[in-house]
Amino acid sequence: MNFREFSAAHRSAIEDCLRAQTAPVAVPSLRAAMDHLLGLGKLFRPLMALAVARACGHADIPALIPSVTPLELIHTFTLIHDDLPCMDDASLRRGVPAVHIAFDEALAVLAGDALANYAYLQLASVANGLGSERRMALIASAARATHLVVEGQVLDLEGELRSLSLDELINLHRCKTGALFSTTCEFGAILAGSPPERISEMGELGREIGLAFQIRDDLLSLSSTDSEMGKTLATDLERNKSTFPRLLGVEGAEAHLGSLLAGIAERIRGMQLAEPDVLLDIAEAAGRRSH
Amino acid sequence: MNFREFSAAHRSAIEDCLRAQTAPVAVPSLRAAMDHLLGLGKLFRPLMALAVARACGHADIPALIPSVTPLELIHTFTLIHDDLPCMDDASLRRGVPAVHIAFDEALAVLAGDALANYAYLQLASVANGLGSERRMALIASAARATHLVVEGQVLDLEGELRSLSLDELINLHRCKTGALFSTTCEFGAILAGSPPERISEMGELGREIGLAFQIRDDLLSLSSTDSEMGKTLATDLERNKSTFPRLLGVEGAEAHLGSLLAGIAERIRGMQLAEPDVLLDIAEAAGRRSH
Repeated sequence: MNFREFSAAHRSAIEDCLRAQTAPVAVPSLRAAMDHLLGLGKLFRPLMALAVARACGHADIPALIPSVTPLELIHTFTLIHDDLPCMDDASLRRGVPAVHIAFDEALAVLAGDALANYAYLQLASVANGLGSERRMALIASAARATHLVVEGQVLDLEGELRSLSLDELINLHRCKTGALFSTTCEFGAILAGSPPERISEMGELGREIGLAFQIRDDLLSLSSTDSEMGKTLATDLERNKSTFPRLLGVEGAEAHLGSLLAGIAERIRGMQLAEPDVLLDIAEAAGRRSH
Repeated sequence: MNFREFSAAHRSAIEDCLRAQTAPVAVPSLRAAMDHLLGLGKLFRPLMALAVARACGHADIPALIPSVTPLELIHTFTLIHDDLPCMDDASLRRGVPAVHIAFDEALAVLAGDALANYAYLQLASVANGLGSERRMALIASAARATHLVVEGQVLDLEGELRSLSLDELINLHRCKTGALFSTTCEFGAILAGSPPERISEMGELGREIGLAFQIRDDLLSLSSTDSEMGKTLATDLERNKSTFPRLLGVEGAEAHLGSLLAGIAERIRGMQLAEPDVLLDIAEAAGRRSH
């Protein structure tokens, strides 16, 4: 099975689960702002967590969906706050107006707050047949990652003021993008009941996949329009942000990405996983996607 | 023992614990923004959680401190975001410039995000001799409350546009202030190992104490200066927000508060608690404090 088939098999169930998870929000405007971007994205993170669980030998993938949607809640929270006028000031996201444009700034701040918090509410209150030890491991992993994403956003804003070195840029994206990918892969292994060493190996794998995803994002941003990418690109360019193509040149960044992806595939093959097919394909897709 | 003595006995340990909990934040500007207001407040919530644990018969209060400081992390996060220009636009908080004034708006949003998230990180990763079942109960309670606080802030902003009825105002403050007080009292009972009925009784008690705290806040805001209260008061007045004195008159609000406090004291006495003294005094202080 490849990523496209896997996504087709599970995507609508993930979308339904996300809608069901925000359904209890009692204030209509808040719920609308929380729902505005949810389900419009590629759902890369929940799908990748499921692919890891499958790779680790878990057979009942649909049963895991309510435990992986919190990754999308957290990711969407970070996008909403990153787009605010005081941060990246981006008006387009996932092909629609950013939350602070479609609603207002206050609701964008509060919808982000509520989504982040709902991730923990789901993980703490939805048992899904998981014991409290395993749910606690998910919460700790998510909280470590979310903190690194916030640190990454601070580094990103501070980095606008000067040119970053390649090491600084890699560190920034290991936080800002890599941390949640790392937790995504940890989620899959934790949910499959894997031993601690496997969970930690998956965390490292996720960090590498996240870096590949970000380099591809930088390359796509150079060669695409806002509507092709579904988000505002000009702000990054205008502000002269450090990116991989800017530091390495387009060919240098492509080459860096190529060797990163080769290392990732080798790493996955070396793990002797039960069903590595979808994971191999999703890792390749992270670095080769066209939007 | 009264609240003043109890606070004197534990306050500096709570402050130290808060400082230790943000110490691992790796980005200096983010850590400074997170620390800016922490420990400057009355620490009412962690102290009240400890008072409840004492009331429920828990003997080793200092050992519980790392498990109650997350309440202060969450409370401080909500203050930082409420003060933002797109919300209450308040420049003074806890006697010092608000975080978006002392730093900038982006860091205020991100420091709030990081504090909220750190609360869960602490609860998930600091074992403190608690089993994972009990820590999961704390996380679920905190997440339910935080969501209600966010809903309350949306209702508050939407309520600026019209006059609220008394029922609407009570509902708003049961969310915005009451929910975290309710969780505060639940924390104390959970940490003391109380049975589910006691935890739920304490949750109801906390909601009432929170309402008393808010009515007192409304009354104090009418008769105090910004520097006496340590926060910007004018914004609420200017925007013609519904408050208890505005709806009931000052005497009416005082009378409502008096009967609420009498009911709270009766409720505490009826619980047959092991050591109710500090809890009785702290509940009275919530409704009688002078700043």
